[in-house]
Amino acid sequence: MPPIAPRSGDAIFASTERVNAELFTLTYGAVVRQLLTDLEEVDEVNKQLDQMGYNIGIRLIDEFLAKSNVSRCVDFKETAEVIAKVGLKMFLGVTASVTNWDAEGTTCSLVLEDNPLVDFVELPDTCQGLYYCNILSGVIRGSLEMVSMKTEVTWIRDMLRGDDAFELQVKLLKQVPEVYPYKDDE
Amino acid sequence: MPPIAPRSGDAIFASTERVNAELFTLTYGAVVRQLLTDLEEVDEVNKQLDQMGYNIGIRLIDEFLAKSNVSRCVDFKETAEVIAKVGLKMFLGVTASVTNWDAEGTTCSLVLEDNPLVDFVELPDTCQGLYYCNILSGVIRGSLEMVSMKTEVTWIRDMLRGDDAFELQVKLLKQVPEVYPYKDDE
Repeated sequence: MPPIAPRSGDAIFASTERVNAELFTLTYGAVVRQLLTDLEEVDEVNKQLDQMGYNIGIRLIDEFLAKSNVSRCVDFKETAEVIAKVGLKMFLGVTASVTNWDAEGTTCSLVLEDNPLVDFVELPDTCQGLYYCNILSGVIRGSLEMVSMKTEVTWIRDMLRGDDAFELQVKLLKQVPEVYPYKDDE
Repeated sequence: MPPIAPRSGDAIFASTERVNAELFTLTYGAVVRQLLTDLEEVDEVNKQLDQMGYNIGIRLIDEFLAKSNVSRCVDFKETAEVIAKVGLKMFLGVTASVTNWDAEGTTCSLVLEDNPLVDFVELPDTCQGLYYCNILSGVIRGSLEMVSMKTEVTWIRDMLRGDDAFELQVKLLKQVPEVYPYKDDE
């Protein structure tokens, strides 16, 4: 049987169940506010958002693989493109550009100009140091870990901090043994 | 100028920006898990979810009024129908039926057979007493308060507790002075 062609992020996004983006944005905002109240320390909130994202990512990868028909990526470069063009589109309805590759091809940046997480968000002065979108870096880290890639994901630019875009640096630390529990042909 | 007809929940839902429902479901699940860890007491988690929902509701009503072309409801009965058929559809992609009216027409139930918040959710025994979807009752309470209606919103049935549907009782306590900051014709 010939392999099924991967579906575009647009097509998948159009065909999956969705909820109103503003509800999502406000819910996420309520989460961040809640964490700031409960944990008080901004660094602790950053950590928790990342951990929540990680827990989401290790489950969301199943939906991604099931719906996208994406098969194993040949290398990290292809992986980064798939996240930027298919994964982000499928879940958030936006795409990113992939830039700033290092010479080894193990570090790159995902640059987002549109980010539904931050609609209507302004950070008060008391939240300097907060990485508001840290859930997103956690999701990417968690998803990649389930397909053998241990990564470090760091915010380089953040529009909530006055930058002109959102830039996430994704650094491949090592390929780890496969933990995804299904075979490709199942 | 003739009044603009209210738009159906389907039409609005189709035309607004959306995110993947599974991402929303998993994010909400991560929130509940986080609150259970941080707060320990299930009652306290119920309260916080309700309060988060309330904070979301008092903002979401703006989006609802802007997108739905719904004008002032003539009475609480019409309001309940609008929530069930337009509001829930617009934000969550589901509808509810409105039943169990009391004789005064001030208490009714919204019955949901489908609820995207609980996809894949099973509550462990340690979470008896948790109203997992309490954010939703908070959203309804908050939204209604912004259009002059002080309500009490209570879960009567909950599929996560073994019931055959989700039933939310909405009780109108009093009409409060208008706090919504815009005029109808703006």
